[in-house]
Amino acid sequence: MKAVVKHEREKGARLQTVDIPKINDNEVLIQVKATSICGTDVHIYTWDEWSQSRVNPPYVFGHEFAGVVVEKGKNVTNLEIGDHVSAETHIVCNQCPQCLTGKFHICENTKIIGVDTDGCFAEYVALPSQNIWKNPESLSFDVASVQEPMGNAVHTVLAGDVAGKTVAIIGCGPIGIMAVGVAKAAGASQVIALDLNDYRLDLAKEMGATTVVNSRNENPLDVVHELTNGHGVDVVCEMSGHPIAMNQGFKMVTNGGRVSILSLPVRPVEIDVTNDIVFKGITVQGITGRKMFETWRQVSGLLQSGQVDVEPMITHHFPLEDFEKGFELMIKGKCGKVVLHP
Amino acid sequence: MKAVVKHEREKGARLQTVDIPKINDNEVLIQVKATSICGTDVHIYTWDEWSQSRVNPPYVFGHEFAGVVVEKGKNVTNLEIGDHVSAETHIVCNQCPQCLTGKFHICENTKIIGVDTDGCFAEYVALPSQNIWKNPESLSFDVASVQEPMGNAVHTVLAGDVAGKTVAIIGCGPIGIMAVGVAKAAGASQVIALDLNDYRLDLAKEMGATTVVNSRNENPLDVVHELTNGHGVDVVCEMSGHPIAMNQGFKMVTNGGRVSILSLPVRPVEIDVTNDIVFKGITVQGITGRKMFETWRQVSGLLQSGQVDVEPMITHHFPLEDFEKGFELMIKGKCGKVVLHP
Amino acid sequence: MKAVVKHEREKGARLQTVDIPKINDNEVLIQVKATSICGTDVHIYTWDEWSQSRVNPPYVFGHEFAGVVVEKGKNVTNLEIGDHVSAETHIVCNQCPQCLTGKFHICENTKIIGVDTDGCFAEYVALPSQNIWKNPESLSFDVASVQEPMGNAVHTVLAGDVAGKTVAIIGCGPIGIMAVGVAKAAGASQVIALDLNDYRLDLAKEMGATTVVNSRNENPLDVVHELTNGHGVDVVCEMSGHPIAMNQGFKMVTNGGRVSILSLPVRPVEIDVTNDIVFKGITVQGITGRKMFETWRQVSGLLQSGQVDVEPMITHHFPLEDFEKGFELMIKGKCGKVVLHP
Amino acid sequence: MKAVVKHEREKGARLQTVDIPKINDNEVLIQVKATSICGTDVHIYTWDEWSQSRVNPPYVFGHEFAGVVVEKGKNVTNLEIGDHVSAETHIVCNQCPQCLTGKFHICENTKIIGVDTDGCFAEYVALPSQNIWKNPESLSFDVASVQEPMGNAVHTVLAGDVAGKTVAIIGCGPIGIMAVGVAKAAGASQVIALDLNDYRLDLAKEMGATTVVNSRNENPLDVVHELTNGHGVDVVCEMSGHPIAMNQGFKMVTNGGRVSILSLPVRPVEIDVTNDIVFKGITVQGITGRKMFETWRQVSGLLQSGQVDVEPMITHHFPLEDFEKGFELMIKGKCGKVVLHP
Repeated sequence: MKAVVKHEREKGARLQTVDIPKINDNEVLIQVKATSICGTDVHIYTWDEWSQSRVNPPYVFGHEFAGVVVEKGKNVTNLEIGDHVSAETHIVCNQCPQCLTGKFHICENTKIIGVDTDGCFAEYVALPSQNIWKNPESLSFDVASVQEPMGNAVHTVLAGDVAGKTVAIIGCGPIGIMAVGVAKAAGASQVIALDLNDYRLDLAKEMGATTVVNSRNENPLDVVHELTNGHGVDVVCEMSGHPIAMNQGFKMVTNGGRVSILSLPVRPVEIDVTNDIVFKGITVQGITGRKMFETWRQVSGLLQSGQVDVEPMITHHFPLEDFEKGFELMIKGKCGKVVLHP
Repeated sequence: MKAVVKHEREKGARLQTVDIPKINDNEVLIQVKATSICGTDVHIYTWDEWSQSRVNPPYVFGHEFAGVVVEKGKNVTNLEIGDHVSAETHIVCNQCPQCLTGKFHICENTKIIGVDTDGCFAEYVALPSQNIWKNPESLSFDVASVQEPMGNAVHTVLAGDVAGKTVAIIGCGPIGIMAVGVAKAAGASQVIALDLNDYRLDLAKEMGATTVVNSRNENPLDVVHELTNGHGVDVVCEMSGHPIAMNQGFKMVTNGGRVSILSLPVRPVEIDVTNDIVFKGITVQGITGRKMFETWRQVSGLLQSGQVDVEPMITHHFPLEDFEKGFELMIKGKCGKVVLHP
Repeated sequence: MKAVVKHEREKGARLQTVDIPKINDNEVLIQVKATSICGTDVHIYTWDEWSQSRVNPPYVFGHEFAGVVVEKGKNVTNLEIGDHVSAETHIVCNQCPQCLTGKFHICENTKIIGVDTDGCFAEYVALPSQNIWKNPESLSFDVASVQEPMGNAVHTVLAGDVAGKTVAIIGCGPIGIMAVGVAKAAGASQVIALDLNDYRLDLAKEMGATTVVNSRNENPLDVVHELTNGHGVDVVCEMSGHPIAMNQGFKMVTNGGRVSILSLPVRPVEIDVTNDIVFKGITVQGITGRKMFETWRQVSGLLQSGQVDVEPMITHHFPLEDFEKGFELMIKGKCGKVVLHP
Repeated sequence: MKAVVKHEREKGARLQTVDIPKINDNEVLIQVKATSICGTDVHIYTWDEWSQSRVNPPYVFGHEFAGVVVEKGKNVTNLEIGDHVSAETHIVCNQCPQCLTGKFHICENTKIIGVDTDGCFAEYVALPSQNIWKNPESLSFDVASVQEPMGNAVHTVLAGDVAGKTVAIIGCGPIGIMAVGVAKAAGASQVIALDLNDYRLDLAKEMGATTVVNSRNENPLDVVHELTNGHGVDVVCEMSGHPIAMNQGFKMVTNGGRVSILSLPVRPVEIDVTNDIVFKGITVQGITGRKMFETWRQVSGLLQSGQVDVEPMITHHFPLEDFEKGFELMIKGKCGKVVLHP
């Protein structure tokens, strides 16, 4: 089969022909119909510090997709051949204290599809049935393929109340843009989107942001101060990973507010704990992955009901062969979500 | 001034001329610009069992309104003459354990405006400054007057998560109809509205219900079963007060779901505690009043942002003098919200 | 092997010799060292209405135990031969919405060990490895065998805050008595135990109740009124199943309080929803089973730390052969927990 | 009257004779019977950077006390002459969004007694009746005077579940020591106390710590790793304010755990947000003051029931005149709580 292979310990990737994967008794084989490019894939493609320390080429990468079940192991009882499916990216151990208490998304021994195992930038992918999420046939493969990153947005935004509240989304990569849509759909009274990239702020606007702020041109703290009568926002979703932006987030949140952090700053961040966390009595949440499968249910509900429409932020489509075009757009930030078709 | 007075211990009420109320040091005098009729007012008007045991004619009733501050007591520091305002209806004691822990809406010694004190079906009303909620001048008096009952809807619907979830609203009086709008605005994937009155189900549809069920014509449990693949709804908001409908609510909620009850059944209700509460592991919440002023902030945020538009359910307007027309419509159920203008 | 078999559709049970169960690839075989009698077992023994409609003799019953793993299926990776273990009684489907969101204890398709499958009143029991809870070797088999019902007590009491609060435990069967110990260990300022049986109230006292009330001799509402300065208790744990006692629970809880119901009344209960739930703004929780395995971790922590000592309420020990003596004591209510030794 | 006055903008304080304060209509005058020294008072006494920027000598400082009401303003309805009382230290505005939603402890305009206003190191203190907490007469003045700092401990420890869980208390000043007692009383299975001061670790042991760690002698991470089978503690209460200790806290908490920070580090702290907060999916809470009056009720319940006994950590008593002896002990860390008697 065709597959995009991280072929060597260097920048780039290659389209190669590899064997169709074999499944074990607990796995299913899925024909991939659409697969979208994640920021993590870009890290692997550009061969940054993190990917050098984590991944082991050669292997097939990619982890966001939608497809159809074409084969199933003998122990698989929850799926049928022909089912439309996507998959949770975290393969968990089922044995650590977190797994044993239903908090699978923070399993101590998580493996990530397309990072630690072969992924879905290919015609077929083999996965444990425990990771599969069934899609309704009415959901397009393109939209279904972005449920995984939308899950990050949903997990972050809905980690507390937003209805009737003011929400700032810091960082408008694809997940940030979807977070805007989720906050709006969940009843936020204001959704303030912040970034340095006007292309993506325009997408944020289209997804329902009530105010967009290019932090290069305006002081985010002044804007938030004005929009909230000096009290600050109720909720900050930090998705930028930049220390300055993150600290602005701590300063713009109201006393007693919530700062939910999904981003992964590359090094430790200096935080004014006394003034920005303790005296303000705020709550800071680390957000990783998606709750299994609470978050998937919410994503599914929001998409099927039309409460969130992600189509505007799926901006580009390519055949799998043209994956390099997709990666270049991602690197330039001149896109929303890029979907590849094997 | 003109006022609608519950004049005697009998059905009806009378338009009379009474003195403009005097304020004490902690009160403000408000000129009433719009006042809406609540189901409670209908109980008082029709002189039912409850009102016979609770209210003491003659007095001015009514408690939902919007107006303008025209005079303030010397201890009042949070308001200015000319402020547009509405008011929380519960006057609390500030001394019971509930008040001392910030749960003012369940104060052990609550007095209700227009029930236990003179109300707002009049040109002027005097109220403690602690009860006043400031409105933006951009909010119309009509819409501002229904914030109080909308607060009941918000308190009920948002007493737990709804984004991406399925919600049933049982009973589509004006508060139920607003609850539909709130659930929709807060991201519910399905909002199923149930009632026996097609006029009100049409309003529910207009406010965003994804399915309306006239329980006279269809079996609510069958409909919910079908719409939820047999699993039941995540959330039930019980606003009917009918024992049969309430029990249907317990049966249609999914295992682990939430039943939030705002209604006031007139007598004890037989509930299958074992099968409908314990084995299902559900949570049942009694909802009364509005959280002070958490709920008011949410209402305000939802209205000002346009996330909820209550205009479609404000169906009738009359001068105060024609209050009887409004009461007759309420009694017949041929209206959404009725607003009177003194 | 020896086993206590529910032999026929009639009162009683018989000690018989049956085959040692065979395990499948996902199961373990456990040698039972101690097994305690649950109220459910008494229902089956006395052949009441519920058991007539639910169980299918002949089969081995019993579900509370501690033992040692003696054989394991080839897919079992989380356990070793020789491990000391107990087991969660609910066998879940892993596929319903509740299981898929980590709420296994309210699985739509739960099977119960010793009710729907062969149980542990025997020398050996075969169980799915997913249900096994590993015990430290320092924990005695007797104490380990009562973790399952103690889990019910923990699940109920810790379904909300109790530290510094007042708690009433209504119904002092073995689970109620353990609930007293749990509430005390979790920092309750008052633990008021109520029952009609002085023997069990004495055990409640020994487990830390600050007040015991025999509802035959004293009016529970008067006692609670006095002990709480007229405000009511913060938390009610309803474990009696009696309609009158349950309604007393609703009346003795303070505004905004919590009523957690573990009991299973045999028929629908009339509840004054308006005055006892809605106006008081309380929360009612149905409690079933134990959270997998959150509750087990709590039980384990409380036992191993010595925060709860259940020894005083394990009042009787018999060899398995003398099971009938145990059942007679349970029927008379003249015991705490009865442990059988195969 | 006698009072300890911060007399000048320099180190130290002076015993002086000043006028008995006058009360306004909403205040009460209290005769101080016992007043304890807080770390904040030590900052003011030693005239550190923070106090130089915040307080305005000459004024009477001190804010922890117990006493008796001797005079009341005409608007005061919740108190009587002769009532035994203590007081919440935060004087709030009642008008900001936080106050309006019952979160008084994070009022945007908080004034602190003894910092921004005259305090209680004196024979009498005048305070708003809204701040007063009534004590039972059975509670000794000494114990009653430490309820305010014990409130900080309770607010921190009980900001989430602890029953059956493992808790680390980092920093064993008087509040940390009381936090140990609170965690133990609330059912923690392990309470690990960490500090550099053996005197205070001994007090922590006496208050119920299951393990004490002098971080000078042992690596805290190694100890916690061992005590928790490598999984980390469920809850960290950070009360040291030291960047190294705080970061150890982030590293010792388990995935999905809680870090509640009461301490006030003097400058920004570098935190590994990616690895210690996001990937672990933890919750960080800033804790300030005491919930009004939820926390006071809990404190009161824990003390009156004997669940927490603070006597062992009240190590020194002096007449008000000897305040300097108390301050010297506090500076050296050779004490638990020091109580002064006017």
